[in-house]
Amino acid sequence: MPLMPDPARAFMPYPLAEVVHAASGPLSGLSFAVKDLFDVAGYPTSGGSPLVLALSGIKTRHAPVVQSLLAAGARFAGKTISDEFAFSLNGSNAHFGMPINGAARERLAGGSSSGSAAAVSGGLCDFALGSDTGGSVRGPASHCGLYGMRPSHGRISLEGCLPLAPSLDTCGWFAGGVDAFAAVASVLLGTDPAPITGPVRLLWPEDLWSLADPSARAALGNAVGQIRAALGEPEIVSTALDSFDRMYWSFRYIQGREAWIANGPLIEGWRMPLGPGVAERFEWARTISDADHSEAWVYRRRFSAHMDRLLGDRGVLVLPTMPDVAPLRITAESALEDYRNRAIRLLAPAGLAGLPQISLPLCRHRDAPLGISLIGPRGSDRSLVELAQHIHKTG
Amino acid sequence: MPLMPDPARAFMPYPLAEVVHAASGPLSGLSFAVKDLFDVAGYPTSGGSPLVLALSGIKTRHAPVVQSLLAAGARFAGKTISDEFAFSLNGSNAHFGMPINGAARERLAGGSSSGSAAAVSGGLCDFALGSDTGGSVRGPASHCGLYGMRPSHGRISLEGCLPLAPSLDTCGWFAGGVDAFAAVASVLLGTDPAPITGPVRLLWPEDLWSLADPSARAALGNAVGQIRAALGEPEIVSTALDSFDRMYWSFRYIQGREAWIANGPLIEGWRMPLGPGVAERFEWARTISDADHSEAWVYRRRFSAHMDRLLGDRGVLVLPTMPDVAPLRITAESALEDYRNRAIRLLAPAGLAGLPQISLPLCRHRDAPLGISLIGPRGSDRSLVELAQHIHKTG
Repeated sequence: MPLMPDPARAFMPYPLAEVVHAASGPLSGLSFAVKDLFDVAGYPTSGGSPLVLALSGIKTRHAPVVQSLLAAGARFAGKTISDEFAFSLNGSNAHFGMPINGAARERLAGGSSSGSAAAVSGGLCDFALGSDTGGSVRGPASHCGLYGMRPSHGRISLEGCLPLAPSLDTCGWFAGGVDAFAAVASVLLGTDPAPITGPVRLLWPEDLWSLADPSARAALGNAVGQIRAALGEPEIVSTALDSFDRMYWSFRYIQGREAWIANGPLIEGWRMPLGPGVAERFEWARTISDADHSEAWVYRRRFSAHMDRLLGDRGVLVLPTMPDVAPLRITAESALEDYRNRAIRLLAPAGLAGLPQISLPLCRHRDAPLGISLIGPRGSDRSLVELAQHIHKTG
Repeated sequence: MPLMPDPARAFMPYPLAEVVHAASGPLSGLSFAVKDLFDVAGYPTSGGSPLVLALSGIKTRHAPVVQSLLAAGARFAGKTISDEFAFSLNGSNAHFGMPINGAARERLAGGSSSGSAAAVSGGLCDFALGSDTGGSVRGPASHCGLYGMRPSHGRISLEGCLPLAPSLDTCGWFAGGVDAFAAVASVLLGTDPAPITGPVRLLWPEDLWSLADPSARAALGNAVGQIRAALGEPEIVSTALDSFDRMYWSFRYIQGREAWIANGPLIEGWRMPLGPGVAERFEWARTISDADHSEAWVYRRRFSAHMDRLLGDRGVLVLPTMPDVAPLRITAESALEDYRNRAIRLLAPAGLAGLPQISLPLCRHRDAPLGISLIGPRGSDRSLVELAQHIHKTG
């Protein structure tokens, strides 16, 4: 029984099982970690929950996304801690611990793909799979100084992955360097169905920028300059339809209702003790009415159409990924809940509309990383990655 | 994935694996559960800890005590929830839930063999294995209206069982009926090295009786009458050497120090989040000095010799198993800690001296069960079981 965890406290302490990868391929020489929401043959899948872990048994098949990476020659490094049921942006698990943010050790890694972000930022692997329902890749990427992507909804298969809220769930990934990041994109995304051709129309969503902490906004100035140098002057636009409150509540009702449908019977049936925050969120999710959920979907459809019009086929929004740098590890649960509620307003547009968003690690503030994001048209995922490479080269 | 737990919430939700038992034998027709501290091939072993569960992998060999039961024809029914690291008398696990006391549903089952006691009292199996370091079989037996035994220390092999405090750990079991209980005793204990021959000297430890709640003491009157009718009039004796405080602290220092040696490196290395009560106890255990531990052992040796003298080869102490009926499920952690500290004073004599103790379900109080115990000389375990059968018959 191993007595010591990895230095980033990122990995689940499963006994090692052999996972075979192709001898050569586009990802040869790169190692990767897998959020413990995806099946890897020879390992259980916990979803960050002790009871799901107990129920799991040992999986006999890899999730297809894992299989793709192995077939491309990447070496499996281990399964990483997820926030409980992936229903948290914090980066802490009441049962399995709190992974360490390798770029700001006294701050949270962010979640729910906390262990994956900790593993990459701690230098324990080259890239890592996460999932992003409400920001679980974008948030930790910003907090840990990594490239991180939420792809277009449905772009990467979630077979063999535990669901949180299926109409919002996506499979994303992290890497420290843009080239490794792009190599993974090439394997997982294939060819864009709607690549950005011709010059990018850079868009500046003034209303989203107003959601960031003023000092964080100021700190992002140099990163904005770098992006403007690469992509040109932005047009000012407005993102929120009707109001931020409607966007926020539409997201929360849809996420909450689907999360309860996917996990409520298990949670209620077993009366599972849940960690702080997660327990209250599921308790709230249980109370969402079908009427609230339906109304949220009416808004969601209007909002998606609004975003499609706004972006056209060459529009790219530039925005702060998160409202601020990662909260300190000692932050009280109530303050984390406040931060989460602010973050959701920034994270909801791509989620609700199913659009691809990439977070770029171009800034530091308060001695910690802070990400800046690009949101592109549906199906332009690889174009966004190429823009990130272009920005990196001109930086 | 099973969406519903068993009605007693007793079992760990592991996927079923085949466990073969002998076609016939002395335990044919009886089913049994196993506290999730003992290895069963095809299952992991959690010790009530999510991280130990993650570390466990699937065991390939049965613990010898499990193998003995299977060889005797008993049918394996499942693995049961243990309090975290078995370091609790409560009957609640912050990660896996709170098993239901089948004899008093609004009260705790008691722990740490909580799931085993819940499974038997809920009628889900005929008997169940538990472990008893500081009362983890005797307490739940009293609370759930079951026969339960802590054997002489070392009498039943603890190979393939996670340790809590090895110089105190024992393997015990529960059953609802005395005959099933005795059948298991026959298989697990073999022949007594020091059977009680000739008439029993029933001993009445006045000082231990004073530790029970006055109303519980009164409620045990009929049970005492039943035992006197079977075994004769008791002599009044005194158990505690020097003081109850010395006995209590000697027990706690030895248990705490050994618990830390066995589990501290894992807990500290992984910074495992522990449940309420368990966290504080391990934190305290970490601070026990070698000097405190050595002094406790000096007392323990004197106390053991004192108990051997007191019992001779035919002495049997009759005492309340626990200070009162099981606490209500809604009891606050601080009140549970008070109850625990009172209970340890009653439970420590057999533990410190390594003596066998059997709890008999002969009483109800406040609409809940309350056990009465017999402690016999070292190695007289089966004689105690026979006394329980004799008391049952004459009752």
